[in-house]
Amino acid sequence: MECIVRPAQSADCDHVMGMIREIAEYHNLLDEVKINSQVLRADGFGGDPFYQCLVAELGPEQGDKQGHLIGYALFFFGYSVNTGRIIYLENLYVLSEFRGRGIGKKLMSEVAKVALARGCVEMKFTVVEWNGRALAWYRHLGAQDKTEAGGWHSLELGAKALHRLAGEGQ
Amino acid sequence: MECIVRPAQSADCDHVMGMIREIAEYHNLLDEVKINSQVLRADGFGGDPFYQCLVAELGPEQGDKQGHLIGYALFFFGYSVNTGRIIYLENLYVLSEFRGRGIGKKLMSEVAKVALARGCVEMKFTVVEWNGRALAWYRHLGAQDKTEAGGWHSLELGAKALHRLAGEGQ
Repeated sequence: MECIVRPAQSADCDHVMGMIREIAEYHNLLDEVKINSQVLRADGFGGDPFYQCLVAELGPEQGDKQGHLIGYALFFFGYSVNTGRIIYLENLYVLSEFRGRGIGKKLMSEVAKVALARGCVEMKFTVVEWNGRALAWYRHLGAQDKTEAGGWHSLELGAKALHRLAGEGQ
Repeated sequence: MECIVRPAQSADCDHVMGMIREIAEYHNLLDEVKINSQVLRADGFGGDPFYQCLVAELGPEQGDKQGHLIGYALFFFGYSVNTGRIIYLENLYVLSEFRGRGIGKKLMSEVAKVALARGCVEMKFTVVEWNGRALAWYRHLGAQDKTEAGGWHSLELGAKALHRLAGEGQ
């Protein structure tokens, strides 16, 4: 299926935010989404961007649906003390009615190009265990499951703990 | 114990690299360390930094050991589509002979301050399962284990897979 993958623009944030909410609904985690499209816009397209995003949009052969966004990949750059420059894929999503047509693969391919162009040698991301279809797909693309193979756990410290820690350093 | 936590400088990279190699030895993964201090310096202190780093050094009351580096925290900024701006802690380390004296906590506290100053509301990181002491310590600081609680798996795509993916998008 013909779709165009391009860097997201500020004007795409409403649509991307709509897809973010769809994913959260799918994961039954809508109440964990604390951001909105204004925040998404400010954090990605202000003077101090915290992420980059590629979007997939329908091509001209889709008639009046041309330009509709049907997927996105949101990522940022970081570092591994083992391998050096990395890209961290926060989220990849394709609207359910457009799956199985190579759009996710095309998004991943473009993210890989961006990563290599910046000198990254590794992509990291997390996938939830019950999403077996996603896990199988990423494995098929060559991903290693570091949790399964090496017992790596993903941890998070929330705002409350960060504030407590920061205060204890006074 | 008195120690000073300060932003790393380019001249610290040899010492930080030495500690990175110590951690890798501890994890029995020395052959996975592909970077060296030149790479570390270029990637953190060139025109396009991929990480930030704080170091802990011995204070003036340590006599001729003043200024010796005894730990570091290496991190970068990123994004969560749920919570917004995040900080990703790639690595925190304190030399074994200086543990149990609050130096790790002081480093974490300073990282938390940097995170909050940039508007981050969450810190993410990974810990290997067999390092029960580290897991317990982070939990004590308020970290949630998303792998245990929610079945999140950490995945990695290496350079070979990235090149293959990038090529398939031609």
